[in-house]
Amino acid sequence: MENFNWNQGFTLDFNLQSGFSQNAGTTKRYLSDMRDFYGDTETVESILEKDNPLIYEFYELGCPEREGDLAFGTTIVYPGLVGSEYYMTKGHFHKKVDTAEVYYVLEGEGYMVMEDPGGNTREISMKKGEAIYVPRSFAHRSVNTGEGPLVMFFTFAADAGHDYGTIEQKGYHHMICRRDGEAVVMENRKWN
Amino acid sequence: MENFNWNQGFTLDFNLQSGFSQNAGTTKRYLSDMRDFYGDTETVESILEKDNPLIYEFYELGCPEREGDLAFGTTIVYPGLVGSEYYMTKGHFHKKVDTAEVYYVLEGEGYMVMEDPGGNTREISMKKGEAIYVPRSFAHRSVNTGEGPLVMFFTFAADAGHDYGTIEQKGYHHMICRRDGEAVVMENRKWN
Repeated sequence: MENFNWNQGFTLDFNLQSGFSQNAGTTKRYLSDMRDFYGDTETVESILEKDNPLIYEFYELGCPEREGDLAFGTTIVYPGLVGSEYYMTKGHFHKKVDTAEVYYVLEGEGYMVMEDPGGNTREISMKKGEAIYVPRSFAHRSVNTGEGPLVMFFTFAADAGHDYGTIEQKGYHHMICRRDGEAVVMENRKWN
Repeated sequence: MENFNWNQGFTLDFNLQSGFSQNAGTTKRYLSDMRDFYGDTETVESILEKDNPLIYEFYELGCPEREGDLAFGTTIVYPGLVGSEYYMTKGHFHKKVDTAEVYYVLEGEGYMVMEDPGGNTREISMKKGEAIYVPRSFAHRSVNTGEGPLVMFFTFAADAGHDYGTIEQKGYHHMICRRDGEAVVMENRKWN
């Protein structure tokens, strides 16, 4: 882990097109890390028999989880499909659930798929040059529905934390799939 | 003031080069709003006799000042000089002083000039494609040392608030001036 000076300030480069930094490394999520996240488990397993594609990567810069600090970085979601379902991030609640997150799309297009603990759902389409406000209390997942990478700059409260478990267990009510060449919102039949 | 849905989420466009949104309006700061911020008061007054240049503008989207929400937007600082001192923002402490801010430079170059209540100073140079971490407790001001606009996307905790008064009264210890065509850090002789 790189060591940044969160008490004195610093700069870090992020390419405005690709999202990559030349001075920090990414955390990578491959399909094998997300076996249970896609609706079509058979297709997941058949892809994994020959390949293990990189689905997305993002920066974790090691911001101390203190009140008043802000974690930031970029997320790069690659284009692709698992069956009819677009490549996406795992998605997470914040542990401190009442904390928002701001994204700014540098390249590409997709959906922010959101869901609160009461099961209220929201899907917001987003594209290059748009900021997205993910409100307090909503679990959120980024889905790439475009032809190229979906690249986003993000910021959230450092003490918000990530809760992947809840959403991994239950899944989201909705999923984003390709039908006749278009991105559509579908019910997730695996939701429990 | 536009009315955004901070409880349900929304997108808002910000041009990745100019920083401007087609769906929100900016707050503008003219030289007359900053009479006492520049070192060379005589030059300020002589400029104001014939003109009142726009120094910078930024978005205030009306985010509720609640814990867990995040204010965001862009700031555009125009290129120019007041005497030898570069165009800059007023700068501010957060009222909740222990709160950070994240900037991401979309265009241009300049300095983030920072100072904590104990008088510790930090000047960080920044340019297009760099994120800047402004740590908790530091007042911060953006200075444009380039030929074109300095455009930054920013995010900070919505309940942090802004305290312009303290820094307006005392000034910063340091100022960024042009000497022989180069940006240099100078002592502010008006500091009190």
